[in-house]
Formats: sequence, structure tokens, C-alpha cells
Amino acid sequence: MNTADLGLPVDVPSTALFTDHYELTMLQAALRAGTADRHSVFEVFTRRLPEGRRYGVVAGTGRVLDAVENFRFGAGELGFLREAGIVDEPTLQWLADYRFSGDIWGYPEGEVYFPGSPVLRVEGSFAECVLLETVILSILNHDSAIAAAASRMASAAGERPLIEMGARRTHELAAVAASRAAYVGGFATTSDLAAGFRYGIPTVGTSAHAFTLLHDSERDAFRAQVDTLGEGTTLLVDTYDVQKAVRTAVEIAGPKLGAVRIDSGDLLLVAHRVRQQLDDLGAKDTKIVVTSDLDEYAIASLAAAPVDAYGVGTQLVTGSGHPTCSMVYKLVARAESADPKAPLVPVAKKSVGGKASVGGRKWAARRLDADGVAEAEVVGLGAVPEELADRQLLVELVRGGEVIAREPLDTVRERHIAARDALPLSATQLSKGEAVIPTEYA
Amino acid sequence: MNTADLGLPVDVPSTALFTDHYELTMLQAALRAGTADRHSVFEVFTRRLPEGRRYGVVAGTGRVLDAVENFRFGAGELGFLREAGIVDEPTLQWLADYRFSGDIWGYPEGEVYFPGSPVLRVEGSFAECVLLETVILSILNHDSAIAAAASRMASAAGERPLIEMGARRTHELAAVAASRAAYVGGFATTSDLAAGFRYGIPTVGTSAHAFTLLHDSERDAFRAQVDTLGEGTTLLVDTYDVQKAVRTAVEIAGPKLGAVRIDSGDLLLVAHRVRQQLDDLGAKDTKIVVTSDLDEYAIASLAAAPVDAYGVGTQLVTGSGHPTCSMVYKLVARAESADPKAPLVPVAKKSVGGKASVGGRKWAARRLDADGVAEAEVVGLGAVPEELADRQLLVELVRGGEVIAREPLDTVRERHIAARDALPLSATQLSKGEAVIPTEYA
Repeated sequence: MNTADLGLPVDVPSTALFTDHYELTMLQAALRAGTADRHSVFEVFTRRLPEGRRYGVVAGTGRVLDAVENFRFGAGELGFLREAGIVDEPTLQWLADYRFSGDIWGYPEGEVYFPGSPVLRVEGSFAECVLLETVILSILNHDSAIAAAASRMASAAGERPLIEMGARRTHELAAVAASRAAYVGGFATTSDLAAGFRYGIPTVGTSAHAFTLLHDSERDAFRAQVDTLGEGTTLLVDTYDVQKAVRTAVEIAGPKLGAVRIDSGDLLLVAHRVRQQLDDLGAKDTKIVVTSDLDEYAIASLAAAPVDAYGVGTQLVTGSGHPTCSMVYKLVARAESADPKAPLVPVAKKSVGGKASVGGRKWAARRLDADGVAEAEVVGLGAVPEELADRQLLVELVRGGEVIAREPLDTVRERHIAARDALPLSATQLSKGEAVIPTEYA
Repeated sequence: MNTADLGLPVDVPSTALFTDHYELTMLQAALRAGTADRHSVFEVFTRRLPEGRRYGVVAGTGRVLDAVENFRFGAGELGFLREAGIVDEPTLQWLADYRFSGDIWGYPEGEVYFPGSPVLRVEGSFAECVLLETVILSILNHDSAIAAAASRMASAAGERPLIEMGARRTHELAAVAASRAAYVGGFATTSDLAAGFRYGIPTVGTSAHAFTLLHDSERDAFRAQVDTLGEGTTLLVDTYDVQKAVRTAVEIAGPKLGAVRIDSGDLLLVAHRVRQQLDDLGAKDTKIVVTSDLDEYAIASLAAAPVDAYGVGTQLVTGSGHPTCSMVYKLVARAESADPKAPLVPVAKKSVGGKASVGGRKWAARRLDADGVAEAEVVGLGAVPEELADRQLLVELVRGGEVIAREPLDTVRERHIAARDALPLSATQLSKGEAVIPTEYA
């Protein structure tokens, strides 16, 4: 399915040009050399977690599946490649027929990962696999970075809901993917309408300072908002004087006012004062929403404050200091020849400056201790040890070019919570540390 | 023009849902309160530069103009808003007819900016302007962050060309915008085919380690590449042993080999050795390209090394530590009433925690000293002082809803170089510092 046919605003007719130039020149050279059909295994993994992080979160897998399905070279794409002289005619003809026909296995979306975890494995001819490098990495590196930050924020927030509101701080389409990844990581809602449209994530929002400033008085603004959005709305109370605004808000909306939002100042102090004031005014059920450059540390610092929900923007969409992961897409094995029966040879770049890879097609499993808590990420070649057989992490996603593992975003979100909960308790410590479980090579 | 009609891969049918939920609820409330038609002035500015940065770079303006033109609510968007219950029927009807009919002025793209610079001014009815907040900020915050990093890298690289190759480290469409912003900031080429297609940026690339590993030997791989791409190609020489690879490369391609690429190790040391070896082999014109987690500091540290070009990925697309700017979109003035002749009232949120705004429609000019070097960013209200009249920074971009200032990307790129060159010399110091010129409020 080409999602652009549905008029959806965030997909594109084809993903085929989200590709680095060198993938096409490698294709051309391999086609001419007769090596393009060698059966190949590529793996996506990371050599390290971002500094101080204890676990990673796989996110974007569902978007990868869409991207692989929509990786088609139409007349527009081919015309560009021809005019720019990027590849020769035989290569263009090969591209015109391109459909990925191989297999993809990977960690299910929402699962956690560690250094060396083979989070995705793409297998097929060299030619068909090499082309997918950039688009797969773009999606996984971006979405996993956001989901990892979201997961930490969700841990810090506990039962209190998190609102994603970072669209204005990142590229307009990255924002939509960020909302999705935030939801996977545990956020409850988003401000981004495109994310609601595309992924069905609940959207929320009421008003900004501009709305108050538009009116002749704060009172007029509050009345205008309550008139149309009802007493259950959220009033923004920090345009002028918070104390006065809270009084006005309850006067106008009554004690059933839904919530007030505070977007500046010392949130800890102000939240306590506002809670007291609301209670004194009889608005005991009116909630307090805080939003102001929050990150997981600020959220944690407000744990004892009378706050009911957090809105997070910049720090979410920029991965809270780590806007990308360092996932790479590496050839780990390829056939000796183009003969379909030729045996696979493990391959790897020589190690220089930490850029080593381990050759060969890998399995991965998470070993648990007697209490069912994760104790190691085990990565190996060949047969899976019997005791780990039912703890394997890779699942089949694409078989012979057909996507076979689509799932609702809520399933992914629940999987993430379960995966994180099965880690040792120190996983959710916010302080810097090592990966919470070691990666062992069997 | 709806660029999606052209089958371009990176635009979307409509930008209308790149919008925060609260913009629509504010619209609904203002329509009902009779305040939606009050003439309003919104300004985009930042309160600070990223820590240690000496100037900012305006980028994305051209994309903003496209986004404003394509901000239309079609049946798909309206159906979503209706089903999700986001706004009421009168608001949906108003949205169905939405066309921005106001005026936009701004710093021309590529210009530098400082704290308080009014980089964009959007003027029209409150209703039509308030809706554009998120999409405008998304574009300017992302693109300007990338362009600022690119500009620092370009200063550090001097005359040596920079290749943008970060697509795999950021969202697949953010990558396309990042290539564009990098080009504005001074990069020469990109690896991203979608950026070549959409913006005509020259694309480059030859091969990855996977290509060498696919073949039975490095020699076979080099031969396959040279056979089809010619002796002028760039061979990647660090898959196994660099010294051996360079020898093989020159044997196969001859002394007219275009370039070798080094992607790991101590680049300074390796570049010197490879240069010597190439010279000894008679390949005196063969260039050396280095790529390996470079940032502006690494580039500067290689200034004395025999390097001919730099490929930059992660650090470019993540803004070299600052993946977003902190631009905001604030209502600074609005009419007393909906009467078209009603006078404008300056408005501003009360200052709390540094979140102050200066009310009123502003002009900006860059004052030069006697030598023609910038000495202050002057921002003021009312009439522009005569001595600054020809140094004004804002230009007209949209008049009555019509885009009137499209320009080629090369013009933007040249403007950036000229603007940076007119700053004091310390602007391009890489060490942390204050804004290179102060912002004065006239």
C-alpha cells in the first residue's frame, strides 16, 4: 500500500531516494562485476549506548516496514538519476523493477536493546539489501533516540501523564515521527495534529499566551475560552500574575475548572502555591499542568510537587541530549558466489578506532536470572543454546518481500513497558551509568 | 503550487496539520468571542544563542514560504478534525476557506541573527496568523540549527569542500532539509539523493566497506569499482590495511586515481602517511577525503594535514550539540478591535524566568563601524533612524498572501558568506563566547 494514495499528510510517494548516492554506485559496480546477486546478510546494531544511558529503546520498526514497501523507483526518481548521471542505463533498468524480495528479522518495536544487539537483520541479494541502508538507519536512529528519552521521562513521571509538545522544535515531519516514538516510550498524548491524523495518537491543547494577549483583559480571554471549550478546559495562568489569574479562572469557570497550566517560573514553588489557592477556592479537582523546558531531571524533581501532568517539548524531540543513536548497517555475511547454493562467508571490517564488527548472521536472547530479571544480552552465531531458545529476541518482520508483522502502536507501547520492567531496577536510575546488563558473545 | 502534484518525494499535500491542537482551539474561541479578526503582529525571535555560539544563521525561509502556500485544509484534514472532535462546525467551515492573506517580512535567508533579532514578522488577522506558529517554528528552528553548525564547519574547513553525509543519523525528511541548510551554511555537496532531487544540490558518493567485503578480495572490489566508475573515482582504503589498500588502489586505477577515502583511525597521522605514499607512487593529484565523526573542531585540527575534502554526518545533522534553536513566535501587537482602522496595541507576556518579550512591531538594522564591520544589531519600534535606513534587515516576503521573494539556493548561500564576512573577525572563533555583536534596543 502506498500511503500517499490515502491522502495522508506525512508519507511520501516513494522512499527510494532517501538513499545515499554511494548505494547506487555500489549497485552499478556490483551488477557489472557479477557480484550483485551474492546472497548477503546485513545487520543493524550499535557499538555503544549514548553516554551514561542504561538501555536503548527500539522504535521506528513499523515505519521501516512502510519504507521498505514504498521503496520503488518511479518515472520521477529514474528521470532524476538519469539526468544527474548518477548511474548507467542497465542500473536504471534494474532499479525500475526494484521490489525488495528478501527477509527481515528484528527486535520487535518497543523492545530494549544494548551495545551489539542485532536490532534488525536484512537478508537477500547484495543489490536489494544495500539500497536500504540509509532509509532504515534514518528511521531507527531518529525514532529510537526519541523513544529512549521518552522512556526515561515516563519513568520519572510515574503515573502522571506526559504530553508531547515539541513539534515546533524539530523538523515538521520529524515531529510526527517523534510523537509516535514518544507514545511508544510512554507519553500519553501529543499537541501535534499531524501525529493524531497519521497515527491516531490522542491530541490535546487549549491556548497560548497569545490568546490572552489578544483580548482586552485576561478575564475576557478566560471567558472566551470557557464559553466555547467548557469548564473542563485548561486555562493558562502565567501571562501576567499567576495568583490573580487563578482567582479569575475559578471565578469564570467555577470550581469544576479542568486544569490550569503554568509555563514559567519556579514550577516547584508555583505549583505548591497554586494548589493551595485552588483548594482554598474550592477547586479541589482542578488539575495543574506544567510546561517549561522540562526534561527527565526536571520531571523527577517535581515528583513531590502537586503536579498532575507534564508537557515536554524541546528535550523530548532532541532526545534529551542524544538526538540520534549510533546504529550502523553492516554487511556481516555474504555468499561465496552468486550461486543460490553457495555457502555464506562471515565478513567484517578490520578493527580501527573501535569500528570493529563481528562477522556472521547472529541470534540474540535475553537471559533472565532465577527471579525473572534480565541479567545478560546474549548474542551468538550458529545454533541457539537450548536454555535460551524461548528467550530469543529477533522476530520475523518481512518474508520474501512481504511484510508479515504489522501491529498497533498500543501493542508496541505495552511491550516497551514490559521490557523495561523486566530489567534490573537500576535501569531507570537517571544518573549516568553503564548499560544495565552486559552483552555477552556466545 | 502544490509540490506533491509534481511527484516530488519530500513535500506533502498540505502543511495544515503541522499545527498544535491549541492553535485550533484558540481559533474557535476567538471566532466565537469576536476577536479573531483583530489585526495582529507576530514575531519570530530567539532570546539567546545556543551556549557559546557567536552568531546564528537564518535558514528555512524558502521552506516557510512553501509551507504557508500549502497550508490548506482539504477534505482529509477537515474530516479528521471533525471526527476527533477537535473544533466545532463553524470553525471547520472557516478552515475550509483558509488562505493566508496577510503579510510576512523577515531577515533574508542566509543572513546572520542575534538574540532579539526579529527574524520573521507575520501580520494579518489573529485567526490567520495564529495557525502558522508551529509549522513556521519547526522549519526555522530545525534549519537554522543545522545551518549554524554548517557555517562553523565551513569556516573551519576554509577552501576545502565539505560533503554532507548525515542522512542516516536523522529523520529521513529532516535529512533533506538538513542537506539544504548545510548547503546554505557553506557545504559543497551531499550524499542524499532526495536532496539532489528536491533542491538540486550536487550529490556525491562511491562505495562503502560493504562493497569491499562483498568481493573475494579488496583488489577485486577496487577493480569492479574502477571498471564502471573510472579512474577518477574515490576508493575507500581502510577496510583492512590502509597502506596495502593504497598500493592496490594505485595499481588498479593508475596514478590518475581521483581520490582515496579514509573513514577510521587517527586521521591526522593516516592522512600524512597516505599523502606520502600516494606521492611516492606518482599519484600526486589523487585527493584524500576523510570521514569519521567529524565536527568543526576535528575539521580545524586537520587544517595542516594533507586533506582535500571532509565528509560530515552526525555532527552536522544534529547541529553540533545544538539540534534546535530556541526561536519563538510571539504576538507583539494587536488591534484594539476588529475594526480595520483600529489602532495597534503593543502586547507582551510579563517577564518571569527570562521569558519576557518586547511588545510592538519592530524594525532591525545592523550598524557598521567606519571600516564596514558590523558593530551592533539594532532593534527598535517606530521610525527607523536615518543613519540606519539603508542597513535595515527585514525584507518583504509575502504581500497580501502572495509569495513575492523566492530565490535560488545559491543566492542564499552567497548571502550567508557575505553576511558572515561582514562580522568582526572573532565571529568564526570556534571557542565558546558571547554573541559577536550586541543587540541594542533603540
